[in-house]
Amino acid sequence: MTGRGKAKRGIPAKSDFNSWYPSIVEIADLVDKRYPIKGMDVWKPYGLSAMSLIDSLARQQMTNTGHSEYRFPLLVPEDLLERENKLVSRLKAARAAGVDPSELRIDEEDSGFKKEVYWVTHGGENELEVPMFLRPTSETPMYTMFSLWVRSHADLPLKTFQIVNTFRYETKQTRSFIRVREIHFFEAHTVHATEQDATAQIDEDAQMVQSILHDLCLPSIVSKRPVWDTFPGAWYTMAADVVMPNGRTLQVATYHHYRDQWAGAFDLSYEDPDGKTQLCHQTTFGMSERLLGSVVGMHGDDQGLIMPPAIAPFQVVLFPVAAHVNENVIPAIKDLAQSLRDSGFRVKLDDREVRPGVKHYDWEIKGVPIRLELGPRDLESGSCILSIRTGGKEEVPIEGISETIGKKLHSISEELRARSSVHLESLVRPFPGVVSIGDKWELAAEIDDDVIYEIAFDGNDSDAEILEKLTGLAILGDCDEPYPEPTPCVVTGRPTTRKQHLARMY
Amino acid sequence: MTGRGKAKRGIPAKSDFNSWYPSIVEIADLVDKRYPIKGMDVWKPYGLSAMSLIDSLARQQMTNTGHSEYRFPLLVPEDLLERENKLVSRLKAARAAGVDPSELRIDEEDSGFKKEVYWVTHGGENELEVPMFLRPTSETPMYTMFSLWVRSHADLPLKTFQIVNTFRYETKQTRSFIRVREIHFFEAHTVHATEQDATAQIDEDAQMVQSILHDLCLPSIVSKRPVWDTFPGAWYTMAADVVMPNGRTLQVATYHHYRDQWAGAFDLSYEDPDGKTQLCHQTTFGMSERLLGSVVGMHGDDQGLIMPPAIAPFQVVLFPVAAHVNENVIPAIKDLAQSLRDSGFRVKLDDREVRPGVKHYDWEIKGVPIRLELGPRDLESGSCILSIRTGGKEEVPIEGISETIGKKLHSISEELRARSSVHLESLVRPFPGVVSIGDKWELAAEIDDDVIYEIAFDGNDSDAEILEKLTGLAILGDCDEPYPEPTPCVVTGRPTTRKQHLARMY
Repeated sequence: MTGRGKAKRGIPAKSDFNSWYPSIVEIADLVDKRYPIKGMDVWKPYGLSAMSLIDSLARQQMTNTGHSEYRFPLLVPEDLLERENKLVSRLKAARAAGVDPSELRIDEEDSGFKKEVYWVTHGGENELEVPMFLRPTSETPMYTMFSLWVRSHADLPLKTFQIVNTFRYETKQTRSFIRVREIHFFEAHTVHATEQDATAQIDEDAQMVQSILHDLCLPSIVSKRPVWDTFPGAWYTMAADVVMPNGRTLQVATYHHYRDQWAGAFDLSYEDPDGKTQLCHQTTFGMSERLLGSVVGMHGDDQGLIMPPAIAPFQVVLFPVAAHVNENVIPAIKDLAQSLRDSGFRVKLDDREVRPGVKHYDWEIKGVPIRLELGPRDLESGSCILSIRTGGKEEVPIEGISETIGKKLHSISEELRARSSVHLESLVRPFPGVVSIGDKWELAAEIDDDVIYEIAFDGNDSDAEILEKLTGLAILGDCDEPYPEPTPCVVTGRPTTRKQHLARMY
Repeated sequence: MTGRGKAKRGIPAKSDFNSWYPSIVEIADLVDKRYPIKGMDVWKPYGLSAMSLIDSLARQQMTNTGHSEYRFPLLVPEDLLERENKLVSRLKAARAAGVDPSELRIDEEDSGFKKEVYWVTHGGENELEVPMFLRPTSETPMYTMFSLWVRSHADLPLKTFQIVNTFRYETKQTRSFIRVREIHFFEAHTVHATEQDATAQIDEDAQMVQSILHDLCLPSIVSKRPVWDTFPGAWYTMAADVVMPNGRTLQVATYHHYRDQWAGAFDLSYEDPDGKTQLCHQTTFGMSERLLGSVVGMHGDDQGLIMPPAIAPFQVVLFPVAAHVNENVIPAIKDLAQSLRDSGFRVKLDDREVRPGVKHYDWEIKGVPIRLELGPRDLESGSCILSIRTGGKEEVPIEGISETIGKKLHSISEELRARSSVHLESLVRPFPGVVSIGDKWELAAEIDDDVIYEIAFDGNDSDAEILEKLTGLAILGDCDEPYPEPTPCVVTGRPTTRKQHLARMY
């Protein structure tokens, strides 16, 4: 940290979220955006540490559920794409036969793939025989290998994951953690004997996402994406969206059921116990540095970040006060720091030669959950002062400090969860509805563009298009918490329990 | 692991090292080389786990010495190279003024840089205005940022590191871990106020390298590289070479003193306490997956890998024997595994339904330091059987097992260190010398090409070239353990304490 005690760091008010967010990621020393390629930030130690702690949460979930960590090459030869193209064509044909207008949208997305990657065309001064692209995600490299690894039902399930850098030639405006061109990416890929096994994996993924979001104190909306927003080659796509303070939803996790569609394209099959060859069923599960972006966006305030204790690089920062007055202060605070470390907390003793006010200010910006001060008077009274980042300052006894800190961290997490839930609820509004006048549809009333709308919706793709065009918002898909009672669809009026959301997506 | 109990896995004899090495990396499930780009292997869980443990050793050293972890972008715009080119030109000019023949060799290496990287020329279907290359190492991206970060003497020292993927368009034959095109790379970059501070950093680097090599049970030869083998832009380059069983040396760590040469090119300066602008002094320190390659190559035997306990993904693998005979075996071995885990060991309980012989065989190939068997008879006697990967099998009491395992792991490390030292000494031979006949030089006797030669050498570059041409070997540079007494130089005959080595380098 630079922290040489400037009185003011120029943090914009959080109510001006679109100014606050890009400022705070640099002011709090998470990244430096001055690297000369737009959308490729330098991770500074504090940001990288928080991200690594998020990675650890994911890794722990993976280990607990029997996934193994691999690392596949970054570069993918163009000719491997043929299989992927074959898959997309096959699906197109199948869907064309069903005459479903949504296919047209899928086609656009698929053909756009080549437009979204970076191409390596030369090695040294030689033009490569086969151009290679930087992975945007790893279906193609992984499934090429999976088809070599899976032979028999005894090889299944194959549960893999990797945490790697991926790339996307992003033409939209870039934003740290939210829309970047080099992405810190988590991807799990699994192979199963049956559709049911893959479905069970999707359920496991759903639980893992919720567990991680719980640790990050982030409530989310979980939806089954509409067909046109389904991942290419997937049977269906589930997504968790966090609602940022400006009302825009940020997709932070997706998990896809592929059935045997990708397996067909990659000759990924196994011999079942009866000696018959069967296609495998697959799932994938992806998350990224967007999780850190949500943490920044959701929990921060006018004073800076607030780090959820589960991923705070430092859960407690200690600093001495008036140590020159009493020579016992420094040894005592060192002991205190060590005993907290021994109890498993992530602890920083800030012994810089700057005023305590500067230290308070610096660590407040960085969102450290608990600041702990110890001075000569505290030594006499056998206590210390805790400043809680979510609010409040209190004197607590040094005796039993580890237990006290543990409880405080727990209550900080609870407080962050409560605030986030209130925030989410406050942004979800009832939809004013649409009315048809002649053959034209109109909104029944004006809508806000910084909130999301909950709708009962059971229409077809044309109905969805009407809604999206009129509102300029996107349908997130079928919410995993449907209405308990049938409610009239906003377009067709037909009673349905299908709850959906209209939102501006990042 | 696949481990379905094939009786023979086709491990070549280790005496045929050039067949053994490429086989064992796949048989022991470290990597899969079938990915369709040569030199880009897939890291399998066992290999990735060992590598991650090596990373942890490096990370620990870095943390203990006040380095912070960063992550810089992979892609570097070509125009940033201008500064690097400027540096190289400046050094060329300076050296040309000194009329030192070694410069010619340096020039070749520098101009080769562009030939050794992969070039990204397109984003989607657009040709990029400025082509970008995949980092082979990160001087250019890092120092571009450092010059923004360092302003005052109070910002120094700046001690950074990162663990990332780097790329090299390798035209030589690739070998897993040893010569690859996507490299798992560790690089530390530091910035100091003075040359002396940078020199102290070089000393710290030397100690860290030795500490890591000690944990990996790998003795090395540490040399100051000759001028022509100095990293471009460095004042001098230190390197640690491990000697592989085929007598070839593998450079596993380098650390470079840059003085203020790179700083000059990157405008990396600071204001000293007197308000004067001074150029910074810099060092770098690099290691890679070659460390794992050395572990594989040095410690393995005809039966497979031998993992040094410090980086063994599993230090102890337990398996039950004849569990069907006594229902207490399974609970007892689970308790045993848990108590070892609680003591901090990396433990695997192999409960596959295959014969114990198969398990022995599988874990022997993977080089697990200790295999622990427990059966009904052992339960009665309160003991278990340990198979030590470096040799021997013994019955030990279950009581105090954690202490026993700790001691055994220690002695396995010691045994590996002893073997490696013997190995190294056995490969270092006295050099038969050279003789001049007329104006031609010849070897005094034939030499072996699978050993390395120790020489007293104090000649100039032409003398070095004579030696390298006659032997087909390379001079590693000034060994950090000079002769205690002056010894005649092999070419000039002048007494010198400078010890050097002639070797075939990987």
